[in-house]
Amino acid sequence: MEHNIYDDPEFLAGYTTLSRQVDGLAGAAEWPAMRAMVSDVASQRVADLGCGFGWFSRWAVEQGAGAVVGIDGSISMLNRARAQTKAGDVEYRCVDLNFLDLGPQTLDLVFSSLTLHYVLDLSALFLTIANALVDGGRIVFSVEHPIYSAPSSQNFETSVSGKRIWPLENYLEEGERVTTWFVDGVVKQHRTIATYVNALIRSGLVIDQIDEWGPTADEVAARPELVDDRHRPWFLLVAATRMR
Amino acid sequence: MEHNIYDDPEFLAGYTTLSRQVDGLAGAAEWPAMRAMVSDVASQRVADLGCGFGWFSRWAVEQGAGAVVGIDGSISMLNRARAQTKAGDVEYRCVDLNFLDLGPQTLDLVFSSLTLHYVLDLSALFLTIANALVDGGRIVFSVEHPIYSAPSSQNFETSVSGKRIWPLENYLEEGERVTTWFVDGVVKQHRTIATYVNALIRSGLVIDQIDEWGPTADEVAARPELVDDRHRPWFLLVAATRMR
Repeated sequence: MEHNIYDDPEFLAGYTTLSRQVDGLAGAAEWPAMRAMVSDVASQRVADLGCGFGWFSRWAVEQGAGAVVGIDGSISMLNRARAQTKAGDVEYRCVDLNFLDLGPQTLDLVFSSLTLHYVLDLSALFLTIANALVDGGRIVFSVEHPIYSAPSSQNFETSVSGKRIWPLENYLEEGERVTTWFVDGVVKQHRTIATYVNALIRSGLVIDQIDEWGPTADEVAARPELVDDRHRPWFLLVAATRMR
Repeated sequence: MEHNIYDDPEFLAGYTTLSRQVDGLAGAAEWPAMRAMVSDVASQRVADLGCGFGWFSRWAVEQGAGAVVGIDGSISMLNRARAQTKAGDVEYRCVDLNFLDLGPQTLDLVFSSLTLHYVLDLSALFLTIANALVDGGRIVFSVEHPIYSAPSSQNFETSVSGKRIWPLENYLEEGERVTTWFVDGVVKQHRTIATYVNALIRSGLVIDQIDEWGPTADEVAARPELVDDRHRPWFLLVAATRMR
């Protein structure tokens, strides 16, 4: 397996300070939108791809999921996930998602939070997932929004007319983006919305909903520091259903 | 009916000089992608919403469509469309798309090129279209890409680091955008990709494909003046199928 950035001690030390890692799902601004997409997981067989510290996996157990598998490529993440999870509640597996193997028609729900933008061959992974989902099974995932991941600089600038602007460039140039996030050299894969949506459809899934997630105007009124996230969405959320 | 900008003589004089109006479909860079989405129209009952000078309507007739209705809110456009169309080939109707009425289950294909960003109530129009399509009937449309329509300035700028950037702002602020295009005061409705996609799904359609259209790298190599359209897509193309 390739080196996983989440096993880098310096990266992990920074990452652990994020509110979504300190407070779990409640610290993730987009969680209410994702939770609505996930809906009822009672009795469902769930896989959590890129489970990290296991926040969603444990939530699914609390909601009465029939079986939960948490999968991540970072052994450091999984060690902490295991330490925080009651024995037997979640089956954690250390697997690089570029080489994921899932049994056929064994899952009702595949969940993935902010992970698929690390995967190299998205079509291959979607086919693996489509093969693993039962008829009517669902995938709900989030990734960094392509508008966010496209430019080489992820900082707002001031336009020639004095406006606060997001310096978009190279939106249609898919592929590797190397950014600094706690450490230098964090590699993500930039893809367009069309690529995510069309790859799902080609895998045999039907799109239920997409959400170009940013705070609502009301949320910005309550938390003015979020105003930039109205200029360019932060995350792309997608829900789709397997149809056989 | 409200004043239609396409009936403004100064606007129309400028608009008529566009290559897609001089050369028709062959002058529209995105036409090959849309044509692939449209696929076979032989024997199909087709409506062309925002038909303009009737280029697509006549193409559909040439391809053997069973019946073609061209609908536009501009009488100036329709007068020229009628003058260029063999009598009886296309039924042209002057209708504001905000007040469109179509019979139930009377159409196999609804086509619309660069028109829906003028419509005020998109959900109402999609419901009208969904009601008009037979089971398995399709919609194929293009609109200005939301990345293109969002900012107040539609001109590239130079970033602080010297890069050519698209000054994105207010992507999530949907609603009216007033631009200068041949004349001042051209009003379009900015919507996110999610809004287009989710409104279709809620109307009972299944998404087949989306295309955030820009030239390919090969096309830019052949026509270097298109390079900016790799930085931000120009059009959003969507194909969806009515499922009853």
